[in-house]
Amino acid sequence: RDPGAVAEARAHQDRLTKPRGALGALEEVAVRLAGAAGVSPAPVPAPPALAIFAADHGVHAQGVSPWPQEVTQQMVGNFLAGGAVANAFAAQVRATVTVVDVGVAADLTPAPGLTIRKVAHGTADLSQGPAMTVEQAVAALEAGIEVARELVERGARCLITGDMGIANTTASAALICAFTGQEAAGATGRGTGVDDDTLARKVEIVRRALRVNGLDGGPAVPAAGGNGPEGEPGTAPALRALAAVGGLEHAAIAGFILGGAALRVPVILDGVISGSAALAAAALAPDVVDHCVAGHRSAEPGHALALAHLGLRPLVELELRLGEGTGGLLAHPLVCAAVRVMHEVATFDSAGVSEKEV
Amino acid sequence: RDPGAVAEARAHQDRLTKPRGALGALEEVAVRLAGAAGVSPAPVPAPPALAIFAADHGVHAQGVSPWPQEVTQQMVGNFLAGGAVANAFAAQVRATVTVVDVGVAADLTPAPGLTIRKVAHGTADLSQGPAMTVEQAVAALEAGIEVARELVERGARCLITGDMGIANTTASAALICAFTGQEAAGATGRGTGVDDDTLARKVEIVRRALRVNGLDGGPAVPAAGGNGPEGEPGTAPALRALAAVGGLEHAAIAGFILGGAALRVPVILDGVISGSAALAAAALAPDVVDHCVAGHRSAEPGHALALAHLGLRPLVELELRLGEGTGGLLAHPLVCAAVRVMHEVATFDSAGVSEKEV
Repeated sequence: RDPGAVAEARAHQDRLTKPRGALGALEEVAVRLAGAAGVSPAPVPAPPALAIFAADHGVHAQGVSPWPQEVTQQMVGNFLAGGAVANAFAAQVRATVTVVDVGVAADLTPAPGLTIRKVAHGTADLSQGPAMTVEQAVAALEAGIEVARELVERGARCLITGDMGIANTTASAALICAFTGQEAAGATGRGTGVDDDTLARKVEIVRRALRVNGLDGGPAVPAAGGNGPEGEPGTAPALRALAAVGGLEHAAIAGFILGGAALRVPVILDGVISGSAALAAAALAPDVVDHCVAGHRSAEPGHALALAHLGLRPLVELELRLGEGTGGLLAHPLVCAAVRVMHEVATFDSAGVSEKEV
Repeated sequence: RDPGAVAEARAHQDRLTKPRGALGALEEVAVRLAGAAGVSPAPVPAPPALAIFAADHGVHAQGVSPWPQEVTQQMVGNFLAGGAVANAFAAQVRATVTVVDVGVAADLTPAPGLTIRKVAHGTADLSQGPAMTVEQAVAALEAGIEVARELVERGARCLITGDMGIANTTASAALICAFTGQEAAGATGRGTGVDDDTLARKVEIVRRALRVNGLDGGPAVPAAGGNGPEGEPGTAPALRALAAVGGLEHAAIAGFILGGAALRVPVILDGVISGSAALAAAALAPDVVDHCVAGHRSAEPGHALALAHLGLRPLVELELRLGEGTGGLLAHPLVCAAVRVMHEVATFDSAGVSEKEV
C-alpha cells in the first residue's frame, strides 16, 4: 500500500466536479486501489477474469448438504457449457470464465475453459482429522497462484474469485472460526438452504472439526509476521489451519489472491467461500488485503464475520447465496465505475464550475 | 402487472440450475419486470438511456445550499462536455446521456445532447407560495413524457432518471412530506453537504413551504383513483402538490416515469430527487411503480421514506449523494444480470444436474 498514491488519490477526488464525499463508499474503493497499484489513479480494472475453483469435500459424508456430491462435477459441466448463473453474469460484465479442477472427486475430461490442476480426489473428512495434508494445501495454493499468473499474462487486469464444491460452506465456517476465533454456531449458516436439523448437525460438525484438529477454544490462528516457537516459520500455523479444515478450492482461492496481489492486480472477492479463503491468504501475507475488494456480502452469517476481520466493506448486499463468483461479477462494474471517475471526470478548474461557498 | 407473467417467471426461476432463492433480491427484480412487461422472461433492459433533467429553484434565495445557482448551468456544460461523474458511469454501462433543460435560470445555447424544453427560468420560491402553476407542472410532465418516447423511439430499452438543480433536495423533501405525510425534520437532509445551521434553516423552509401551500398537518396527498370533491378529477390534488412544492425537473422526471411505464420500458430510479418525483408519478397513476426499479438508496433520509412508500427495495446502497443519475446507472448492470439469468441459464433438466434431495 503506497501512502503517496493514497494521498494523491484522495486529493484528486476532492478536486473533481462533485461535492466532496458524494460518491460514498466508491471513493474509498478508488483510493484503496490507487494505494494497492502504487499509482493514482489506479488502472481501470478491466478486462476481468473469473476463475471458478472446483473441488469436493470428505465432510459431505456427514450429511451437511442436501445436494448429492456429483453436483460439483455436473456444475463444472454446466459452467463449461455456458449454462450457469456465473456464465450469464460473466457475459454481462464481459469477464472470461476459467474453471479449475483442484479436487473434484471424479476424473474430468479435458475441455476448453477447463484447467486441470487436481491435487486430490476431494478432501478427507475434516470432522475426523485434517482435510488435507500441508503438502496438499500448498499444492492447491500454488495452483491458484499459477492460475492468477496465467490469466494476467493473457491480459486480465482484474481477477474475480469463484468456487464450486458441494459442502464447501461447512469448510468455510470452520476456517472462519479458526482464523477469527469465532464460535461454530455464529459462523455456520444454511448454505444452499438446509433445514433446521441439518443446520444443527452442520454446527456440530464444525465444532468437532475444530476440536479434532486442535483449533478450538484458543485464540484465532495468528497471522504471519515472525517465526513461531522453535524456529517454525510464521506461516506454519496458518498453513496447518488451512490444511486441517479447508477445502482444496479454499486453498486454491487463497493462492489466487496471493498471486493477484503479487502482480498488483485487484482481486474481487465473491462470497463466504472466497471470504474464508481470503482469511487464510491474509494470515499468510497480511498485505494482500490491500489488493482485495469485497464484491458482496452473502446471506451466510460467517461471511460478515470474515469481512469484518479483513476490514473490507462489501459493495453489493442483495442476499445472494450462490457462490460461483456471482457476487464478485456483479461488483465488477461498480469497481470500474469508481476507478473511471478518477480518469475521466473533470476538475472544478478544468470545467469552469464554481465551488461551494464556504 | 400481468399475474400470469409473474407466476411464469417465478416458476422458471425455480427450475434454473441454482438453489431456490439463491439470487436473493435479484430474483424479485426479474419477476417484477416480467410482470411489468407482460411476458416472462422480460426483455433484457438494454441499451439504457440516461436523461438528466436540469432546472433551477426560487428557494435557492433562502440560503438552503452552499452552491451558487449558476452551478446548475455550469454542470449542464460539464455533462455536454462529457466531464461529469454521470458521463463516466454512463460510459461504464454504455448508456446514452441526454440533458434536458426544463427550467434552468439562464438561457442555454443549443448543443448536441441537449434537449431544450424550458418551461420557465426556474421555479418561484416554494416557501412563499406555489413553486409552479399547475400549467407549468403539466408542461414539465409532458416534456418528460416526450423525452421518454423519443429515447425509446431511438432504441432505448431501459430509461434511467437523472437530475441537476442546485437546491433541489429542498423541493424533494417538501414533496416527500406532501406525498407521505412525513414531518419536515424526518425528510430533510444535508443534500450536497450543508452544515448544521443550513440544515436547520432547510427544515424550517420545508415546513414553511408545506404550510403556505396548505400541505401541512393533514394526511398525505391521496393517490388518483376516483374523482375528488365537486367533480374534481382524481389527479388534481397530486398535480397541485407537485406544482406547489416541486421543481420543474421533479415534474419532468415524473413525466419520464409515466412515459416509460406507458411504453412498458423499465425505469431505473436514481436518488432522492427521482424518488420524490416517483411519488408524484405514483400519485397520478399508481401502476407506474410496477415499471420502476430503485437503483440505489442515497444518503438523504427522505429517500428511504420515499422508497418505503413506493414499496421499492434499492439495489445499490453505497451512500452516494450526487444525483445526476449516478445511482441509477450503477444499478443498470445488476438489473440486466437479473434478467439475463432468465434468458440464459440452464434448467436442472436441460443441464443434467441433480436436484437437492428432499
